[in-house]
Amino acid sequence: MADASNRQFTLAARPEGAARLSDFALVRGAVPSPKEGEVLFRNTLFSIDPYQRNLMGNGSSEWPAIDIGEPMGGPTVGVVEASRHPGFAVGDHVQSWAGWQDYAVADGAGLRKLDPGVAPLSTALGPLGLTGFTAWYGMTKVHDFKPDGTLVVTGAAGSVGSIAAQLGKLRGLRVVGVAGGPRKVAFLKDELGLDEAIDYKAGDLEAQVARALPDGIDAFFENVGGPVFPVLMEHFNTGAKMTLCGTISDYSDTELPKGTNYLPRLVTIIHYRFLSIKAFATPYVMDAFPEFLAEMTPLVTQGRVTYREEFVDGFDKLPGTLLTLFDGSHSGRKLIVRND
Amino acid sequence: MADASNRQFTLAARPEGAARLSDFALVRGAVPSPKEGEVLFRNTLFSIDPYQRNLMGNGSSEWPAIDIGEPMGGPTVGVVEASRHPGFAVGDHVQSWAGWQDYAVADGAGLRKLDPGVAPLSTALGPLGLTGFTAWYGMTKVHDFKPDGTLVVTGAAGSVGSIAAQLGKLRGLRVVGVAGGPRKVAFLKDELGLDEAIDYKAGDLEAQVARALPDGIDAFFENVGGPVFPVLMEHFNTGAKMTLCGTISDYSDTELPKGTNYLPRLVTIIHYRFLSIKAFATPYVMDAFPEFLAEMTPLVTQGRVTYREEFVDGFDKLPGTLLTLFDGSHSGRKLIVRND
Repeated sequence: MADASNRQFTLAARPEGAARLSDFALVRGAVPSPKEGEVLFRNTLFSIDPYQRNLMGNGSSEWPAIDIGEPMGGPTVGVVEASRHPGFAVGDHVQSWAGWQDYAVADGAGLRKLDPGVAPLSTALGPLGLTGFTAWYGMTKVHDFKPDGTLVVTGAAGSVGSIAAQLGKLRGLRVVGVAGGPRKVAFLKDELGLDEAIDYKAGDLEAQVARALPDGIDAFFENVGGPVFPVLMEHFNTGAKMTLCGTISDYSDTELPKGTNYLPRLVTIIHYRFLSIKAFATPYVMDAFPEFLAEMTPLVTQGRVTYREEFVDGFDKLPGTLLTLFDGSHSGRKLIVRND
Repeated sequence: MADASNRQFTLAARPEGAARLSDFALVRGAVPSPKEGEVLFRNTLFSIDPYQRNLMGNGSSEWPAIDIGEPMGGPTVGVVEASRHPGFAVGDHVQSWAGWQDYAVADGAGLRKLDPGVAPLSTALGPLGLTGFTAWYGMTKVHDFKPDGTLVVTGAAGSVGSIAAQLGKLRGLRVVGVAGGPRKVAFLKDELGLDEAIDYKAGDLEAQVARALPDGIDAFFENVGGPVFPVLMEHFNTGAKMTLCGTISDYSDTELPKGTNYLPRLVTIIHYRFLSIKAFATPYVMDAFPEFLAEMTPLVTQGRVTYREEFVDGFDKLPGTLLTLFDGSHSGRKLIVRND
């Protein structure tokens, strides 16, 4: 351990609209030393997720952004290099919220020990990590989705949406996924086995939606927002339930769109169809994480819930990889950056 | 009883936007005869309410409109003229959903017998009728509004809003009313004793709202919709609860407004502040009516809940009186047309 060997990507500037590479700065600092009760670990895998745009500020999110000069936040998997905590030994694999830096320290409360014999370590950032927990919680605890009726999942090819959609199928719902482009749509139908898939980039959205939803929407798992939602909301059935998980297409917006004001229409639909719309945030509900792991681990290890990962090699790829989530170019696979 | 002596106002045409007098037709038919188990009554008081616009169709409502040629619907108070039902005698006062006609028949399930010794008969159309029930149910059953925090009521000088606002005060909430014009605002502060009143017609709405809501909104009883709501929604606190009772300003709309699209903003606020928005409709919840009467009757007879009525004389005034609800000219008093 030498000084100036801990690389960090810090927030250099708040984005103006879409985030850019110049909003990040690569800095080097000292590797921290663990105090009594703490553990030093080196991050080997970094999770790339849409909400990381919100940590940068200057967008639609209402939650606190990180400060300029602070390391970017996010879940990581690491390996313990020094321990002053009785529960962790050198060589242990851990998952934490260490953010974009080579090294970090944490006490036991901030660390989850991983067993690489149970599932690949990367799953601790995907289906068996916050990504999967988000999908599971929204499908299980936010609303008690009934085992019949039609579930719509937006961003259905994405890391959260694909798990939510599969949980819907496992629970007996008819599941309609929304995604962009023929490859994602093929994934939804052929690999996830969804009942219908809507390609929001293919045009003729109203007709596609009407064809896919002959019996309307009973349950809705929303990840996307943007112009697709006003088309979908027309198909809510009376008593429909919506889990509001995210609105990735709005995260970079600093102004509201112009044109038709759909707010009165949403209010009318809520009014006459008794919609229930609920939101959640994982930091407030982490006490359900053990229950999630107990249900999801066998589903993942038995292959009943599938997941797709895309690995990007090199610490220096962290900012650029995040940006691909917002330019429409990424595949929908769970993005993980491997440290070098 | 002679033929052609039962006057009715029927729906002659579906409105184009705001309803007009020419959308109604005055017709005369035979006075109906009660069958076994039925009661014939003559309507003496007619309730005039915003949702009657929705019965006419061609507006924002999603519920079935009445057919062209059908009598307009609505609550009435009447007096029994002939009875073939053991529970009702000639001369009894009854409240029913008889609509805009001199005479009607109903079986016992459609009639509520009134005791004029308990409260004035007109209250069966106001604070002790569907109007009051709507306010009470939305304040009591839709959300369990906490006895602290700030409640906002829109349309607060109206027949439903004024009762909701008073129930809020009785339950210990800080209550902020929204209404249009200095006379209604004076009513809210001086007669209802609300903590603050916002005049949405006075301009400078953002500043008025900010002054009236230094601690944000914890509970919201929405009657109005329209351009005021996007200003108010910015002040929702985390976990705020909204009862969606009506959106009178949108009822005549056949197209959505243009300009800023506030839908993504509402979704963002729901997302980050965990709003709970619930709607209800009295026809589905009438089993709570006895509980409502038990709580509200003493409040009204003891003067702890006040109400304002405005009587209009003459059957022929029914259509014109309804229209005043939508042209901004009416006082906010509960409108009741007296039969001649």
